[in-house]
Amino acid sequence: MAEPTTRGYTATKDQLRTRLRRIEGQVRGIQGMVDDDRYCIDVLTQISAVQAALDKVALGLMDEHARHCVLHAPDELRAERTDELMAAVARLMRRG
Amino acid sequence: MAEPTTRGYTATKDQLRTRLRRIEGQVRGIQGMVDDDRYCIDVLTQISAVQAALDKVALGLMDEHARHCVLHAPDELRAERTDELMAAVARLMRRG
Amino acid sequence: MAEPTTRGYTATKDQLRTRLRRIEGQVRGIQGMVDDDRYCIDVLTQISAVQAALDKVALGLMDEHARHCVLHAPDELRAERTDELMAAVARLMRRG
Amino acid sequence: MAEPTTRGYTATKDQLRTRLRRIEGQVRGIQGMVDDDRYCIDVLTQISAVQAALDKVALGLMDEHARHCVLHAPDELRAERTDELMAAVARLMRRG
Repeated sequence: MAEPTTRGYTATKDQLRTRLRRIEGQVRGIQGMVDDDRYCIDVLTQISAVQAALDKVALGLMDEHARHCVLHAPDELRAERTDELMAAVARLMRRG
Repeated sequence: MAEPTTRGYTATKDQLRTRLRRIEGQVRGIQGMVDDDRYCIDVLTQISAVQAALDKVALGLMDEHARHCVLHAPDELRAERTDELMAAVARLMRRG
Repeated sequence: MAEPTTRGYTATKDQLRTRLRRIEGQVRGIQGMVDDDRYCIDVLTQISAVQAALDKVALGLMDEHARHCVLHAPDELRAERTDELMAAVARLMRRG
Repeated sequence: MAEPTTRGYTATKDQLRTRLRRIEGQVRGIQGMVDDDRYCIDVLTQISAVQAALDKVALGLMDEHARHCVLHAPDELRAERTDELMAAVARLMRRG
């Protein structure tokens, strides 16, 4: 995760950290909205935003993983790592 | 949101708060995993767990909203509130 | 489902029929792609298109149902119908 | 796609064909339900079933593709094919 430039869904470790910190703040914000009895539809909109942000983090991690840990795995590990990756994709598609 | 018993997806305000606090902790845990260079697949599994927890919160909120704010809305507001609810469902299905 | 005009996600029965016929054709097209050994990524793109089309049909049906069968249900049936609707939403969010 | 045994999400071409034919039949069944004015919730349940079946086909195709067309791609094509695969995953997660 050290390359200075990114392509596609790839994210550097710093970008992932920044996004996760922002997501943590958004979740705290949602707690505040519930405490303040804010309109449910507005809370639901914020939950959808957090989920989109989490999916973006997941796609960034998965892209890094495919590129580094699957493609560059020793031959005898590649099949196993592809299995793992597909199982992770299934869970993110909520079919795991 | 004050009833002591719940049915179906309905969640009390306290249950929502507890779940959201736990989700905040899970997101912090994911940050720690990224900091520690934990295996990507394990991080992705945690992200899937947070997504499931957020969906549960969303379903709880939506159920409350349908039951209280849509069904019991004054007649002239019901159509509008149904529109809002359907738009929220579409966003949670990632089609918004 | 007889009104000539639609709003939001609402779809008339004829619109639903047309969409479902088109989806059936798309699924047949995917079978042809598999038979012809077409590039997997192109097949996956078509599957995503069918999923989007099915979600649109589902949102149309759900909107009609909420508007007619839940809001206009006799008082004693409304809670039960709201439960059913929420369970259907959960299944479409793949959490059912 | 010729191996007689499968592992994980992998599906043979014949399995994919069989599943897609069944999905086509399910979509036709949904059209019949709409024609017969069947209860919306039951139609929605069938739509969710078709979506689960399509996701299973997609996971089978993706697994085959990762295993054969990405891992065994010539070196100069692997990065590009990983990009394509990640974009397909994003579309199936409805974030494409």
